[in-house]
Amino acid sequence: MKLALLLSLGAATMALSMPVAAQFQKPEDALKYRQSALSVMGTHFSRLGLMANGRVPFDARLAQENAAIVETMSKLPWAGFGPETERITSGTKARPDIWMDNAKFKQASENMMAEVVKLNAAAKTGNLDQVRAAFGSTAASCKACHDAFRN
Amino acid sequence: MKLALLLSLGAATMALSMPVAAQFQKPEDALKYRQSALSVMGTHFSRLGLMANGRVPFDARLAQENAAIVETMSKLPWAGFGPETERITSGTKARPDIWMDNAKFKQASENMMAEVVKLNAAAKTGNLDQVRAAFGSTAASCKACHDAFRN
Repeated sequence: MKLALLLSLGAATMALSMPVAAQFQKPEDALKYRQSALSVMGTHFSRLGLMANGRVPFDARLAQENAAIVETMSKLPWAGFGPETERITSGTKARPDIWMDNAKFKQASENMMAEVVKLNAAAKTGNLDQVRAAFGSTAASCKACHDAFRN
Repeated sequence: MKLALLLSLGAATMALSMPVAAQFQKPEDALKYRQSALSVMGTHFSRLGLMANGRVPFDARLAQENAAIVETMSKLPWAGFGPETERITSGTKARPDIWMDNAKFKQASENMMAEVVKLNAAAKTGNLDQVRAAFGSTAASCKACHDAFRN
């Protein structure tokens, strides 16, 4: 059997042994993925914060754009916190509690996603007061998770 | 005038001097943002590739999910290639040509985004042949830009 075919079969076997949605070739890829997704989310969430906090003028269209991106991003990082990433201790602020109390971590992630859905709905109204309130609730859900699970 | 107020005014002035869509506090933030967005896009594009190339079984729903994320991500990185980031030469594979021939770079980015729109439409059909064809065209648009603008 030729090497290329063997490698191809090996890759296919590895790929098939995992759900497609959670596919990372190695734990470090999962770490990079979750950090990238959280970073992009944070950038757009911060832009909403500048408007919510009156640091830049409220622009309903930009608020909607940013909130939509935040909602898309909010669903992504969690696949990158698989159990195989628990052993990575450098280059991450993730606490072992993520895997020791995974149900609580999952609940915290779901709380955040639920708040982000409301934030996106608020942005669609074009009403700054609603955006401001939803931004505050969402920020609290971020902080709750960071306090419990991030160094 | 109190320090907090001064700092607040300073931040507001800085924020107001840039379009909200292109806001980064420093060039390194823009670099991190564009790399994160491209990395997340690459992860989901690769998953489509595994299906398009027959390495994992075609799953129409997962193909749609991945293509939708790719389309969202495809619009994001470009704001992170602002002229203020030209001076960053470490930790990036970006070639100076991006800023020396910015019209060509912009065209390359628009080509990719247009292919991704077609890829997302193909994924929505649930037809593997269409996904495969659109994946190939999109991958070619990625490669064209990388060949011209990435070390």
